[in-house]
Amino acid sequence: MSVDVATPARTAPEILSWSRDLVEPELRSATARLSESVKPPTYHHFGWTDGGGSGKVLRPAMALLSAEAVGSAPEPALPAAVTVELVHNFSLLHDDVVDGDATRRHRATVWKVFGVGTAILAGDALLALAAELLAERPAQLRILMIAVADLIEGQCADLRFEDRDDVDVAECRDMAKGKTAALLGASCAMGAVAGGGGREQIRQLRSFGEEIGLAFQFVDDLLGIWGEQAVTGKPVYSDLRNRKKSLPVVAALRSGTREGRQLAQLYGKPDDLTSPELARAAELVEGAGGRRWAQEQADQLLEKALSRLHAAVPRPRAEAELTALARLVARRDR
Amino acid sequence: MSVDVATPARTAPEILSWSRDLVEPELRSATARLSESVKPPTYHHFGWTDGGGSGKVLRPAMALLSAEAVGSAPEPALPAAVTVELVHNFSLLHDDVVDGDATRRHRATVWKVFGVGTAILAGDALLALAAELLAERPAQLRILMIAVADLIEGQCADLRFEDRDDVDVAECRDMAKGKTAALLGASCAMGAVAGGGGREQIRQLRSFGEEIGLAFQFVDDLLGIWGEQAVTGKPVYSDLRNRKKSLPVVAALRSGTREGRQLAQLYGKPDDLTSPELARAAELVEGAGGRRWAQEQADQLLEKALSRLHAAVPRPRAEAELTALARLVARRDR
Repeated sequence: MSVDVATPARTAPEILSWSRDLVEPELRSATARLSESVKPPTYHHFGWTDGGGSGKVLRPAMALLSAEAVGSAPEPALPAAVTVELVHNFSLLHDDVVDGDATRRHRATVWKVFGVGTAILAGDALLALAAELLAERPAQLRILMIAVADLIEGQCADLRFEDRDDVDVAECRDMAKGKTAALLGASCAMGAVAGGGGREQIRQLRSFGEEIGLAFQFVDDLLGIWGEQAVTGKPVYSDLRNRKKSLPVVAALRSGTREGRQLAQLYGKPDDLTSPELARAAELVEGAGGRRWAQEQADQLLEKALSRLHAAVPRPRAEAELTALARLVARRDR
Repeated sequence: MSVDVATPARTAPEILSWSRDLVEPELRSATARLSESVKPPTYHHFGWTDGGGSGKVLRPAMALLSAEAVGSAPEPALPAAVTVELVHNFSLLHDDVVDGDATRRHRATVWKVFGVGTAILAGDALLALAAELLAERPAQLRILMIAVADLIEGQCADLRFEDRDDVDVAECRDMAKGKTAALLGASCAMGAVAGGGGREQIRQLRSFGEEIGLAFQFVDDLLGIWGEQAVTGKPVYSDLRNRKKSLPVVAALRSGTREGRQLAQLYGKPDDLTSPELARAAELVEGAGGRRWAQEQADQLLEKALSRLHAAVPRPRAEAELTALARLVARRDR
């Protein structure tokens, strides 16, 4: 891959830091428009009340680099960057209520601190703000709102899976496409639209984002079992504790192995799982091949994503940097 | 008021029926775009699964007539009509979760039937759909999303009031402005924009809608205490049961009367109120003057609304019909 000699490509941490510096002031000025009651829960959620910064701002970085990939400066993609981040956080606020998660980014979740009603309303406010900010950008608005619909469908499927014992890997992948791939695909597509990219470039960059999003979900599911609390900000084994039908778990349950059957028994227990049972469940997912399979899937999705990216005929430096981000996303467990 | 002789103005029930006939097919085709998981809860909410029709579609009627008021046919206001109805129902779905209300329109609420998670997600989907449908209409989108922000602020204020004993009537009115007036104002403003109205017409029609919205809230609060179950679809005394700080209740609590103080004692009880206590609470609100005050406020708001409407220099037939709707809204308790 050839990289512009004059301005060498940056590393993923450098890109994320650059993206945060560009996006955070815009995000702060956008959220300053929120009504007074909605600000405290939103600022808490973004980590602004205890002096911390917002999260990784991965989606904004994808939007900004996608604009660069089609030959534009990053600035025209700032509205895209801000609104994908608003929508991402709208969905986190509501997901935490829906899933009953009490911790996020090492902090108590908004519903836990401010109550369920306020968390729902704060999420609503972020979604409405994102739509308002895109009023003059119909193509981007449409891409984003369709991604929201996909995201919701993924979350609904996730909810239904909790009550089912027969979820298969394909359904689980479809669900992940909605929950994670749609918004990352939209981030890239909106950036490419904002940068004036051609139809085929937009299509390939969207596809790149979707594949990376799916890889992200595989890695997220691995972290949901084996991630260190210091990294994830969640308790260890948190997905097993909630008996989540995550990708490695479903692969293990459907593996036809002895470990898979033992895992099914543990998941079927009416009581909360004890600490030794949680550790045992993690061993069983691994023994049934769920862990290795998920890692392989993430690797394959990364390769597929990079070939989509290349097919968009991107500017070399932007390609190198999107590749660096993609590798970070698909390999953050290792 | 002069009315076009060739096409006489219709009565409020005729207008609502006409509006429903125009809007419901559009609403059905819009909601057909919702994802599969979101359709069952949404269709249940709209009353389409048990053969019933959607609600009164008051807001769409206001949008359609506002377009006519500025000299347009009603059709250009159909996107406004559909999206205000989608947003209204988004807010009902979430409010029922936030308030824990188990019954709406004589049916179990969505969270009660499908679970809290699904109700939150279905509401989200309606809001995103409304934004998507207005992608090519930036002025209307902006009006609607700002109304959503006001609506959320009103609902947040409502939530905070539950924990406070010192809410005054002005705060309560401000809350009602957000909760009800904002969306009715937006309905009229969007209709006027869609119909090509002038800036001053849009401003006056928005103001008309807001005053009517506030009158609506006063009447709604009266119905929340004295409404027949057959009319409201909610249990009798439902607001008193939930110890809601509704407008007549706050007026009574702040009246400085003996009845007001007795009501405060009842509202301060830790246990659920018994049936005799509920009946007594209703008597105390009335005895403290809360009922009469709320009725007078609704009447004054109606007069103010009609003067705003007239200031918009509307087509006479549309003025007569908006007046008929306004009277219906502001007097449905009597």
